[in-house]
Amino acid sequence: MTVGTGFFRSRWVEVPDGVHEAPDGGLPQGFRAAGVAAGLKPSGNPDVGLLVCDAADATSAARFTRSGVLAAPVVVTKQRAKLDGLRAVAVNSGNANAATGGRGLDDAAKMQGAAAIAAGVPHERVAVASTGVIGVALDTQAIVSGLAKAAGQLRPDGEGDFTAAITTTDAFEKRATLDVALPSGGRVRLTAQAKGAGMIQPSFATMLCFIQTDAALSAETADLLLGVTVKRSFDRISVDGQLSTNDTVLLMASGASGVRIEPETADELAFGQALDALLRQLALEIVRDGEGSERIGRVVVSGSDGVAVERAARGVANSPLVKAALNGGDPNWGRIAQAVGGALTDTAPLEIDIAIEGVPVCARGAARPFDVPALAERVTREEVEYVVGLPGDGYETEVFFSDLSHGYVTINADYTT
Amino acid sequence: MTVGTGFFRSRWVEVPDGVHEAPDGGLPQGFRAAGVAAGLKPSGNPDVGLLVCDAADATSAARFTRSGVLAAPVVVTKQRAKLDGLRAVAVNSGNANAATGGRGLDDAAKMQGAAAIAAGVPHERVAVASTGVIGVALDTQAIVSGLAKAAGQLRPDGEGDFTAAITTTDAFEKRATLDVALPSGGRVRLTAQAKGAGMIQPSFATMLCFIQTDAALSAETADLLLGVTVKRSFDRISVDGQLSTNDTVLLMASGASGVRIEPETADELAFGQALDALLRQLALEIVRDGEGSERIGRVVVSGSDGVAVERAARGVANSPLVKAALNGGDPNWGRIAQAVGGALTDTAPLEIDIAIEGVPVCARGAARPFDVPALAERVTREEVEYVVGLPGDGYETEVFFSDLSHGYVTINADYTT
Repeated sequence: MTVGTGFFRSRWVEVPDGVHEAPDGGLPQGFRAAGVAAGLKPSGNPDVGLLVCDAADATSAARFTRSGVLAAPVVVTKQRAKLDGLRAVAVNSGNANAATGGRGLDDAAKMQGAAAIAAGVPHERVAVASTGVIGVALDTQAIVSGLAKAAGQLRPDGEGDFTAAITTTDAFEKRATLDVALPSGGRVRLTAQAKGAGMIQPSFATMLCFIQTDAALSAETADLLLGVTVKRSFDRISVDGQLSTNDTVLLMASGASGVRIEPETADELAFGQALDALLRQLALEIVRDGEGSERIGRVVVSGSDGVAVERAARGVANSPLVKAALNGGDPNWGRIAQAVGGALTDTAPLEIDIAIEGVPVCARGAARPFDVPALAERVTREEVEYVVGLPGDGYETEVFFSDLSHGYVTINADYTT
Repeated sequence: MTVGTGFFRSRWVEVPDGVHEAPDGGLPQGFRAAGVAAGLKPSGNPDVGLLVCDAADATSAARFTRSGVLAAPVVVTKQRAKLDGLRAVAVNSGNANAATGGRGLDDAAKMQGAAAIAAGVPHERVAVASTGVIGVALDTQAIVSGLAKAAGQLRPDGEGDFTAAITTTDAFEKRATLDVALPSGGRVRLTAQAKGAGMIQPSFATMLCFIQTDAALSAETADLLLGVTVKRSFDRISVDGQLSTNDTVLLMASGASGVRIEPETADELAFGQALDALLRQLALEIVRDGEGSERIGRVVVSGSDGVAVERAARGVANSPLVKAALNGGDPNWGRIAQAVGGALTDTAPLEIDIAIEGVPVCARGAARPFDVPALAERVTREEVEYVVGLPGDGYETEVFFSDLSHGYVTINADYTT
């Protein structure tokens, strides 16, 4: 897999004017973070992370997995934390604290309490998150010691250590520090740390993303912006169509820059666009790190029926046949047609158009002649785009997906608990 | 993969009393079949099959794929054939005649006409079916010559040649000849020939099944029995969750045995049970032949909400994580919990029970201790059963599925058109 330079390396992410990577990193003003090894991972790698916002009036917004089977930290955070005013996040890797029953809920609450003490904030202003093996009781003693140790190591440039502590089998680090120049002249910093590589864990894995800014945002604005941008990023990716029990995305705003983002202003739009670019690129990084993944596909579907458009896009993105063809560098449009037909049952005759990398290969349901060697070359590149036209217009959506490789099978089948 | 002896080799198929395999095979009275090489397959293997019923008053019933993208032979058979009175079936492999537009419909109609002449029956009593590559125009000249040649080779024991002509990349033959002793004392023969091994084709593959009997059935009875038994067999399997454009199942009854199956009689029940066992075992053979498949899983889900029960069962059967764990012989129940949670979004807290091979591993959403090495041994056998209890009762369903192996990726990714 070719890895470009710089954070924004996908042609599918538009980088707004005024957004620049900070070469030396560092968290926004008002934030400190740390990551330590607490002994949860047999490897001895970092496994407990703590992130703290020093501003008493910090605001926040959150999004969680919609799975019917929720891990204990998700339940505890949703029920016991003030989601619009979070000031600290405690995360562990190595154990998902999922399918652990009442004991798991108690343990997640203990973790929240220990983090509150370590961070020096009320417990209801602490979110907890976990990722790792499931069905195994959390070692809360290790967590408590780890959080205490992390509290002593909190630094304004601790985001790298924090990122290391929240990853599991990620093949590469997923984080960025951006400086954003707003139309009104203000400058704010926007950072994020994510983990996730599809369902790569022995049991099942998780997507986590923590975002910080020193802009001053009302909780309503934070919620609005996070909602819109998550819908355009983490909601539009699929490694293997599998929804985790632990997925968590948190945005925290310290306000420490003194720059306030007012609703319905050019600044809000610019900040939202920066957040959008950040989350889209991070989402693509998770797809790119999909188990054994070698390339990324993007399917764009349009048509007159919004539900059908969404179903068709998910059908293509989750089709093992399409994903295997992507892996093999095979411009096999028949599998696209089959996946769309299978997703939209009882709709025949369905006259669809298909283009791969801009080359029309199927028009109104029938094959079109095209330059096969030329297209075959294009689909062996790192990013491949499929455009599907259902009849009519008015709705359009996209899904990003990883390929299906021998690496996926190796990671998920050859491992035995 | 261990292959047992005899046709009925799955513990999940109950063989009714009075049903016996005919060791020497042969079609039911009134049927003749042939298979020839017509040059559609580059390998030179048989690729055109013809099956004819000599009874003028034959009855039949049919079921087709529900894909929104239908292949031309499916459209032509549904629109131009008398589905309750079919007397001949013409099938080709090597070309699916799908995504071929108006030209494809003309070609399928030509194939139907040529088969009618070859079989000596009106064209509306001929069904056509195709399987193979897509988006490529059918060589109708080869088909017409092939059907003429096949007509000269029709034999009462031609079902083996017919089966060879309808297969694509099937690793083994899927057919059976059963003799059925009815409660009233009558004896009838029931035969079937199937093809399918998941989406193993370069483009996409297809499930075809042709069933014959010399019992006398009204068209209504044939339709009723086929509907019920297809719902319990081909509708309950998943190799990779992918629905084909060409799937076709046909039941034809010649009545040549002189034994009439009357509605709502013990004979109808016994005949229906024999048909049920036949189709269930054939469906399992297709799963067993799933691309690179090494073992078969069965998931049984129960609960108080029928829609949720079906979604959860499909979610487990189509989960690449569950399928990879099945391949790896890994008793990884966390993936079952994750797949159920992902299928039933926004239902938390969902207290589920999970048992693998009869061993409870998760109760009311929390891990249960079990003998890991003993269970690990059981999940390396050829058939593995997962039972999931959602809250309540009243609904239960099952889905059979293949594993996800390196073979699947090799077949589907390493091939390049």
